[in-house]
Amino acid sequence: MTYQIYWIAGSPYSWRALLGLLIKGLDYESKLLQASKGEHQTAEFLQINPRGQVPVLRDNDKIIYESIAILAYLDRKHPQPPLFGSSAEETGMIWQRIFEIENHVHDPVSAIVRPVYFDQTKEKMVEITEVLETVYNEFASIETVLGENNFYIGSKISAVDLALFPLVMSLQRALSLENGKALELNFLPFEERYPNIASWIQRIEAIPGYEKTYPPNWSDT
Amino acid sequence: MTYQIYWIAGSPYSWRALLGLLIKGLDYESKLLQASKGEHQTAEFLQINPRGQVPVLRDNDKIIYESIAILAYLDRKHPQPPLFGSSAEETGMIWQRIFEIENHVHDPVSAIVRPVYFDQTKEKMVEITEVLETVYNEFASIETVLGENNFYIGSKISAVDLALFPLVMSLQRALSLENGKALELNFLPFEERYPNIASWIQRIEAIPGYEKTYPPNWSDT
Repeated sequence: MTYQIYWIAGSPYSWRALLGLLIKGLDYESKLLQASKGEHQTAEFLQINPRGQVPVLRDNDKIIYESIAILAYLDRKHPQPPLFGSSAEETGMIWQRIFEIENHVHDPVSAIVRPVYFDQTKEKMVEITEVLETVYNEFASIETVLGENNFYIGSKISAVDLALFPLVMSLQRALSLENGKALELNFLPFEERYPNIASWIQRIEAIPGYEKTYPPNWSDT
Repeated sequence: MTYQIYWIAGSPYSWRALLGLLIKGLDYESKLLQASKGEHQTAEFLQINPRGQVPVLRDNDKIIYESIAILAYLDRKHPQPPLFGSSAEETGMIWQRIFEIENHVHDPVSAIVRPVYFDQTKEKMVEITEVLETVYNEFASIETVLGENNFYIGSKISAVDLALFPLVMSLQRALSLENGKALELNFLPFEERYPNIASWIQRIEAIPGYEKTYPPNWSDT
């Protein structure tokens, strides 16, 4: 049986898993849940993931959730191309960067993106302002790294790129919407502000099949 | 050259790395930093980890930080005994649980522990009350799992135990201090409230060399 992936359009965590399946060249059955209809909170889905979160990967009778864990699982089952490095040094660096993203990039980026999506930028202006310097610093650091290499760890795509890309794209998406633009932050256009990040995005967008992973609800605006 | 580990007494993240070195049977040079003297914020240490955080593992010219990344690095260099499973299924489950700990257990436990350590339980009572139900639920779930197995994933210790143990011990420690006791939460004694967790702690404490990993600043009270 092919893999099944439960996901929600626009969820950056879901996007990570879809990109993992893409890079590994794996077929999968798409189980797109409608968050607006609460399909991730039904009794049926809570049997699959009691936390009511996506993505969830189903491999016959095995169920894996947490986006990075799905990447680790796929990598163990399908070692080529490696997402977690070809040496201890690469593996260590990849996991270090992943946890840096989770512990230092994710929450500050979300503190900007979520108020835009939920139309709460006015109520959350203090929180947005608080994280701004951190996000600028993290983006400056990412821009530097991507000026030296095609991907975050050297010349080949790794789990770091898959973990980071959906967060970067979410920020770009949020700041392109009307209430995001109104924040007047200095991130966009990436082509001008962060040309190395912009080129890295293009390299990932050029992967054959990429469009199948692109959030379907982002295409209509 | 042997490994060097930079750590701070009482840091649960440091403890994870020390336990990893212990389980792998690796010699290391202990570089214990005094947080009270700001030794993790010196120019010298910021050259090692620009984020000014511990633990940091040094392996000759290679530097790895983020506690779980250190475990992944050690596991790749020294595969026995495996900390991340012996099959894709185990690997997926271990990483899933690790990210569940990081995303769902860590912050709520810290929201209780930190105010106790920093003598801010009165100022932070709202935050403590907010996380209580979550921490009770997570502990109930851990208690159930540890009733079925000796360790979190089956019969052998894994990175899940190493990630979780220092958080559980930190909660026990905090709630044993005077201002922790005054919170009158219903976690302690673990032997009564969470007998399976208490037995699991004893199994980890029984690992030869465990005492070398125990926070030195916890022994004096």
